[in-house]
Amino acid sequence: MPGPAESDYRGGMASSPVSIDDLRRRLVAAQQGMQAQGWGCLLVSPGPDLRYLTGYEALPLERLTCLVLRDGGLPFLVVPELEIAAAEASPVGSLGLDLLPWAETEDPYAKTADMIGPLTSAAVDNHMWAEKALPFASALGDVPLQLAGPVLSSLRIRKSADEVTALREAGAAIDAVHERMGEWLRAGRTEREVAADIDRAIIDAGHVRTDFVIVGSGPNGASPHHEVSDRVIEEGDPVVVDIGGTTAAGYCSDETRMYSIGQPPAEFLEYYAVLQEAQWTAVAAVRPGIPCQDIDAIARDIIAGAGYGDLFIHRTGHGIGLETHEEPYIVAGNDRQLEAGFAFSIEPGIYRSGAHGARIEDIVVCGEDGPLLMNDRPRDLQVL
Amino acid sequence: MPGPAESDYRGGMASSPVSIDDLRRRLVAAQQGMQAQGWGCLLVSPGPDLRYLTGYEALPLERLTCLVLRDGGLPFLVVPELEIAAAEASPVGSLGLDLLPWAETEDPYAKTADMIGPLTSAAVDNHMWAEKALPFASALGDVPLQLAGPVLSSLRIRKSADEVTALREAGAAIDAVHERMGEWLRAGRTEREVAADIDRAIIDAGHVRTDFVIVGSGPNGASPHHEVSDRVIEEGDPVVVDIGGTTAAGYCSDETRMYSIGQPPAEFLEYYAVLQEAQWTAVAAVRPGIPCQDIDAIARDIIAGAGYGDLFIHRTGHGIGLETHEEPYIVAGNDRQLEAGFAFSIEPGIYRSGAHGARIEDIVVCGEDGPLLMNDRPRDLQVL
Repeated sequence: MPGPAESDYRGGMASSPVSIDDLRRRLVAAQQGMQAQGWGCLLVSPGPDLRYLTGYEALPLERLTCLVLRDGGLPFLVVPELEIAAAEASPVGSLGLDLLPWAETEDPYAKTADMIGPLTSAAVDNHMWAEKALPFASALGDVPLQLAGPVLSSLRIRKSADEVTALREAGAAIDAVHERMGEWLRAGRTEREVAADIDRAIIDAGHVRTDFVIVGSGPNGASPHHEVSDRVIEEGDPVVVDIGGTTAAGYCSDETRMYSIGQPPAEFLEYYAVLQEAQWTAVAAVRPGIPCQDIDAIARDIIAGAGYGDLFIHRTGHGIGLETHEEPYIVAGNDRQLEAGFAFSIEPGIYRSGAHGARIEDIVVCGEDGPLLMNDRPRDLQVL
Repeated sequence: MPGPAESDYRGGMASSPVSIDDLRRRLVAAQQGMQAQGWGCLLVSPGPDLRYLTGYEALPLERLTCLVLRDGGLPFLVVPELEIAAAEASPVGSLGLDLLPWAETEDPYAKTADMIGPLTSAAVDNHMWAEKALPFASALGDVPLQLAGPVLSSLRIRKSADEVTALREAGAAIDAVHERMGEWLRAGRTEREVAADIDRAIIDAGHVRTDFVIVGSGPNGASPHHEVSDRVIEEGDPVVVDIGGTTAAGYCSDETRMYSIGQPPAEFLEYYAVLQEAQWTAVAAVRPGIPCQDIDAIARDIIAGAGYGDLFIHRTGHGIGLETHEEPYIVAGNDRQLEAGFAFSIEPGIYRSGAHGARIEDIVVCGEDGPLLMNDRPRDLQVL
């Protein structure tokens, strides 16, 4: 292909749960955040930050596309001439953003710096590639670069009502896949075969993209990062199924449920009960004002109290929205307090190396009075 | 999911067309390139560069994974504790690379800098996120960062015989999809419906991932970056079909062929003949020693000579390998001479705004004596 983008042919044009007015408010808030930090400009390359601020779903590629917010001037979008039509077909057109097009043989960094004028500092989005960030720093006169993460994630971390609706739709879509697990998961099939069925079902359930499929049967369930293998699932296996995708609105799903093929080992049932209590107690503790690390500690203390502390080897959760992993992270050391609208996973796990493992995961939004659950499937072990 | 990766459940574990010995040679060559540049270290985050050097197919996510090559020491891989098993299950294990694991609450940048020791310059891979590159620069004592692109792409740009085989397999897989186009492409269906069929066929043909599907019918063919829409394909439409995916070996396919639903407009046939001559003449000119920009000029001159110069609005091609777009770019201003093993697209286009458009694209490897074609479907207009 001559140009930029991954197709979104499964779900239609970058449908967005936000209105043009919402995008305008986000742009203004980002500009204000930039000014509060004293940055001369804020540069946002293709990715979730750009989609959040403009609705434009461009992929990061070699040609420079970049939103420029600047102190004392209107925002504009640097765009390859070839992609003007694609940019204008996105919400960028309705937003009325000025474009700064550049031709195939021009230097877009120098052209952007000319348009911005002299400044003493600049911030870049956290995912900007070094090959874009370093030329920007140089074209802008070797100004020190800052990471825009603190400003942009402080906006993205608080989900609006429309965004919570989008996360709920994503949650319902992945629930619908878990609901069908009995059709595919049985003794005699390989993890890979089951995963291929799940993949198709994730798309059929209303996602435009499958992001990951983990089917960890028996001993493979003891590695939290196992994905799939050619292992044949056996009678008595506990199976970790952790799956997610992205909807047309751009929001991600992520849900883990536990299955067993017939009766699992007694030892497994013992720690599964502990895990279920830990997960649910952490979910129930969600409310504005509680620090992220406390949610982690609540789950961890219950697991440690039952003697399984050494077998819970990862953080309790991660934020979710336009990315599967974003702020806030539910991890020891993160003293950030939850606020209404924060969205994240709660997914403690217990991993008995060489034998089996278990994880239960829900996406939770912090509501004004407590947790709002984005997933709805039973958290009991599903014996198939 | 608690962790890192997109699943590769469709194609098995990161199968690689390279041997451990090849990976060792690449690591040594990268280290020598680094030393020749006078860089104190070379830092490679997850992505195609890391896969090229180590065979490890990790995705870029928030936790730091990074290959460190350094002057006067063995290379090592910084890896989150949680992902040690995944790293060791990849060719990293057989390579015997040292690991520097870090725990969920440690600062991996400081830990890496301590291991590296004092230095005066550092290079990072071109796709490293700013949120990794800037903390590295700071942890290493505010050393100036360089882009490792020139060193790493000088390795990746020359495909080995095994890599050419992998590109040929990818080319055959996408040929097989074009061969079936008549099953799906017909009047009365929308572009989106056709694209959904193509998507499934791309996977069935042996790719592990569909990268993009462009179905540009009638006037939509006049926008090189059109993907798909709900437009209903009509009798007499010329249709641009530009599709690609990634195989289990990690190599990309990318092929454009032109179709028409019954008899297309006479004007279209007129410029299609010009385009076909331009594309084929540029392909035939491929040989070691010819500058990239000359290949572009050969196609462009033929199109301009026939009076369509203003309608060919993009470069002639891009390199391809572990990424769909990589060096060398076949564009005016690129005086780099082709060498045996360079792999790239040749894809001129003519776009008649509001009416229709055409593009023909092949992946070509520069052989010792001329072009090696990775695609094999007829370049004549396919009238369905």
